[in-house]
Amino acid sequence: MLRPMNEPRWTHVLDAEAIEAFMDEVFPRANTFARIDALGEGRLVLTLRAEEGLDRFLRPGGTLSGPTLMNMADTAMYFLVLSLVGREALAVTADLTMHFLRRPPAAPLRAEAAMLKLGRRLAVGEVHLRSEGVEGPVAHATVTYALP
Amino acid sequence: MLRPMNEPRWTHVLDAEAIEAFMDEVFPRANTFARIDALGEGRLVLTLRAEEGLDRFLRPGGTLSGPTLMNMADTAMYFLVLSLVGREALAVTADLTMHFLRRPPAAPLRAEAAMLKLGRRLAVGEVHLRSEGVEGPVAHATVTYALP
Amino acid sequence: MLRPMNEPRWTHVLDAEAIEAFMDEVFPRANTFARIDALGEGRLVLTLRAEEGLDRFLRPGGTLSGPTLMNMADTAMYFLVLSLVGREALAVTADLTMHFLRRPPAAPLRAEAAMLKLGRRLAVGEVHLRSEGVEGPVAHATVTYALP
Amino acid sequence: MLRPMNEPRWTHVLDAEAIEAFMDEVFPRANTFARIDALGEGRLVLTLRAEEGLDRFLRPGGTLSGPTLMNMADTAMYFLVLSLVGREALAVTADLTMHFLRRPPAAPLRAEAAMLKLGRRLAVGEVHLRSEGVEGPVAHATVTYALP
Repeated sequence: MLRPMNEPRWTHVLDAEAIEAFMDEVFPRANTFARIDALGEGRLVLTLRAEEGLDRFLRPGGTLSGPTLMNMADTAMYFLVLSLVGREALAVTADLTMHFLRRPPAAPLRAEAAMLKLGRRLAVGEVHLRSEGVEGPVAHATVTYALP
Repeated sequence: MLRPMNEPRWTHVLDAEAIEAFMDEVFPRANTFARIDALGEGRLVLTLRAEEGLDRFLRPGGTLSGPTLMNMADTAMYFLVLSLVGREALAVTADLTMHFLRRPPAAPLRAEAAMLKLGRRLAVGEVHLRSEGVEGPVAHATVTYALP
Repeated sequence: MLRPMNEPRWTHVLDAEAIEAFMDEVFPRANTFARIDALGEGRLVLTLRAEEGLDRFLRPGGTLSGPTLMNMADTAMYFLVLSLVGREALAVTADLTMHFLRRPPAAPLRAEAAMLKLGRRLAVGEVHLRSEGVEGPVAHATVTYALP
Repeated sequence: MLRPMNEPRWTHVLDAEAIEAFMDEVFPRANTFARIDALGEGRLVLTLRAEEGLDRFLRPGGTLSGPTLMNMADTAMYFLVLSLVGREALAVTADLTMHFLRRPPAAPLRAEAAMLKLGRRLAVGEVHLRSEGVEGPVAHATVTYALP
């Protein structure tokens, strides 16, 4: 009964590999903290890289920091925009609203981004952030990108 | 691949009938513009009542007004909170963020609310608003209720 | 010590009278619930018309309704945009974030809008809503308009 | 004409020195990127420390990164909460809405936080972020803290 009706069809023009190659090219040092795990149908999953440990993302008390969560949401949405509009480094965040829902432990984190509207000038999406072992999302974000 | 993991189990203590009876009791004149169409698993669908026509909800140009959309989102979330916490008239909206995505035509509108976090003091949810005949949501809202 | 530094200079091209004349022309029935009380330096004050009583804006319990507050914030920002860009009926709200701070009594309400950024495609402003007799704002909104 | 009316009186129980001492005690390594420049009347000004250079805050293109802006807004609001409620490490961010208005250059940045509402359970404030040499704010945030 609760299935979305009338979803738009999304056409992705870049895949995960092409996005990561583009990032290496234009922002050589930026793309080292997260990995694209899935992409398609207007959605993208980004995972925080935990190979080198999560220490640099922790705040006192051992939870992932707020800026880490906001960065993950913003990056997931940026990659989703790139996948739909192509190699466009100049897309910039116009607004980001985040609700912090549960304490994110020092555990793998994933950001599930879904495009809500892709216009010529604005792209609006939402992101659910989930921590391994935690019931329910640890944070939810709505993000708008302005397209040049 | 994109299924939510680790969703909380939700226990609804009021059904649609009980919510509407409660509204008739405490807010006798308020509950006349929308109808609960589905409820369960932390979700609720509210439909704008179109029997008497949509004229009173239109703004010039023939689209549903912004306040109508915000009212639908807020009411859907209020009913969802009631369904989970019981007869609690004093829950109040703490914040509401709405992104307007597409023009909502003079057509049936439904609000699909999903609870993101139900704490003792705050309930946070999100609402997708969909218009009959429109591809993709016409608006998205995040709503926080403060619980007494 | 806390004065803003480096504020932009704002040039208003429509005054309150011109905005109200424009509204009467394009949205003949819409402009009856609020009055522009002050305008200048990128700011605008809008007051809820109380001559005919506030009953239609009240919700059960005798406070002004949430949709009334959101409508006031959105309208104040729309008029402020008009004053700066001219007769442009097609500006539409892109997002609105409202925090509800205190219960707004059945008393005169004013919306104080300030432009934060006026770009070619987006205008972003904030609105403080104040009720007569209440210490501190009853609500705060951030509003983005998309310009055609 | 546009002066706020009916502002609450704010009583600060910690000054800048006491806040910084508290931070050194509970979060020994966190408090090194910003300095409290002014505090009083429900407001606080936080400046990004530029002595060691701004390199670590820059993103490709030479502008301050979005996470840096969000971190400044969140920290300014946290310190303002502490100044009003006392040594309370457990206050946590409930929501943060940021609008990015202008590109923040590699220049000193300051966050001007103002408390909108201090309740027993929630504190809501807003923050204007300003860059040296830029007309108008580079970003605006609304931030809610949940108090334990």
